Amino acid sequence: MARVLTGIQSSGRPHLGNILGAIVPAIELAKANAEESFIFIADLHSLTSSKDPELRIENTRAVAAAWLAFGLDIEKTVFYRQSRRPEVTELTWYLNCFTPYPMLANAHSFKDKAERLADVNAGLFTYPVLMAADILLYSADLVPVGKDQMQHLEMTRDIATTFNRIVGEDILTIPEARISEAVKTIPGTDGQKMSKSYNNYIDIFLPEKQLKKNVNSIVTDSTPMEDPKDPDTCNVFKLYSLLASEDQIQEMRGKYLGGNYGYGHAKKEFMELILEKYAEERKAFDFYMSNPEEIEKKLAAGEAHAKAIGEKLLQTVREKLGFR
Amino acid sequence: MARVLTGIQSSGRPHLGNILGAIVPAIELAKANAEESFIFIADLHSLTSSKDPELRIENTRAVAAAWLAFGLDIEKTVFYRQSRRPEVTELTWYLNCFTPYPMLANAHSFKDKAERLADVNAGLFTYPVLMAADILLYSADLVPVGKDQMQHLEMTRDIATTFNRIVGEDILTIPEARISEAVKTIPGTDGQKMSKSYNNYIDIFLPEKQLKKNVNSIVTDSTPMEDPKDPDTCNVFKLYSLLASEDQIQEMRGKYLGGNYGYGHAKKEFMELILEKYAEERKAFDFYMSNPEEIEKKLAAGEAHAKAIGEKLLQTVREKLGFR
Repeated sequence: MARVLTGIQSSGRPHLGNILGAIVPAIELAKANAEESFIFIADLHSLTSSKDPELRIENTRAVAAAWLAFGLDIEKTVFYRQSRRPEVTELTWYLNCFTPYPMLANAHSFKDKAERLADVNAGLFTYPVLMAADILLYSADLVPVGKDQMQHLEMTRDIATTFNRIVGEDILTIPEARISEAVKTIPGTDGQKMSKSYNNYIDIFLPEKQLKKNVNSIVTDSTPMEDPKDPDTCNVFKLYSLLASEDQIQEMRGKYLGGNYGYGHAKKEFMELILEKYAEERKAFDFYMSNPEEIEKKLAAGEAHAKAIGEKLLQTVREKLGFR
Repeated sequence: MARVLTGIQSSGRPHLGNILGAIVPAIELAKANAEESFIFIADLHSLTSSKDPELRIENTRAVAAAWLAFGLDIEKTVFYRQSRRPEVTELTWYLNCFTPYPMLANAHSFKDKAERLADVNAGLFTYPVLMAADILLYSADLVPVGKDQMQHLEMTRDIATTFNRIVGEDILTIPEARISEAVKTIPGTDGQKMSKSYNNYIDIFLPEKQLKKNVNSIVTDSTPMEDPKDPDTCNVFKLYSLLASEDQIQEMRGKYLGGNYGYGHAKKEFMELILEKYAEERKAFDFYMSNPEEIEKKLAAGEAHAKAIGEKLLQTVREKLGFR
């Protein structure tokens, strides 16, 4: 059975774009049981950008709560925090010594970040090696990646190939990329791609009052209430369509075209749809956030499982390099 | 009591220069008991240059055997292999995120190595961060360094200072350099500084026959046997003087000046002096090399001790960064 490994950023609670684009598909896939699924929260990576401990704890918790709320089944998925498996940092050192310096120096994402960011640290620079260790420690066969991560996966393959060649044995599994199939881009409140960095996201876990404010922030044009409206150019309609049934979509389309239906009405219906569709997930999320020990329990199980697998690989690597 | 931490290269068995310049003084200092002494074999560092597992095991063993043979007392010194304390690689990741990329890119030794070596890997690049972790993990107060390592120690101080400033607490001890006092340079068999890389060293642990060959390789001039000779320009005399008593030195000086005394005679006396002076150490070295489990036992004690100390510091670091 192929092993699929997915790393998730720990930059705060997932928004609707993350939920529809990543969480729901990954959980569906894990449920199908056709593959062995590893999902980890990449909190070590977060240190390259944020040094705030409270924020890191809060964010990591929120990410775990969101995945669990959407039904991640810890019986079917090895779910863990990267930082709780220090084997990965030991493997990172070994892999560093098999990683050509120029390969890292020429990486697109490093060059890009080095230009944009004030804090260009060595963690940022060696991040692709940590990512390689994340993947290789668990002998993952498949890694779902977006286009922006393709180069990093290529590096992982290069590092693993070099390592195997030098030690003269196929110790590390060369992972394949699973290019995310053209998932339809989830639009944000302003019509651009929904993204934390554009601050145009819908956070379905917000308390009702704040959620209302969030939904009301969706950008619309100034067509008067009475006039017919074009659903296909409207951000509210687009977002509504992501969650609604075919019937509901057709119904709202009719209202847009018929006139005497304002954007405010559409926003209200979208808000109600979120509350109805995600009632359970919202409740579960709140439960986990107020009972972090429940999150801890679930992660601890995955971390024990990950440890057993990672230590075995690491032991072999140590032996091959003359460290045991 | 100040804690002094010394890292030793694991590049093979120490030669006479290492013994007189590093091993004997460090062991004397540890015996004096005025400081707390940590001495570790930097085998993780060795992976930046050598990928040969057998060689690494053999070299690490030889280094340990030499230090033990010269009387390193594991009751007075925490003696361990770097690779057996994986806490250091975890700390390295954290410190990476507090290390400015340009600081590493501009390091003298990296620039120098990047020009000379064929394999310029990321381990070589981040080596100063691993060195910082080596020192900071054990809250060392003092680190004996040669001139060539001064910049690395400065980096350690910088990284620790940045870390403490950002987390808002003095978690990491800022180490001081102990500049090796102008130890008289140990001359090699050709009069240059004795060094593995010049291949001009005396290996006192060699079996007698090979040791004789080694001693005979000392470069001398072609003054005929009968003529008086200048002891002060002679490599054999210089080396002999390092080991001999004042009386012995004066006696040999007389012979040089008197004539009818050849370099071959001097070499023979030097050889005899080595065998006599280091009889015990040679025996102990052979014992350890043929009983690696005895080395293992001694190192295991130090590694358990180091673990307890390192884990405590690491736990604090994790908490301050929001990983626990």
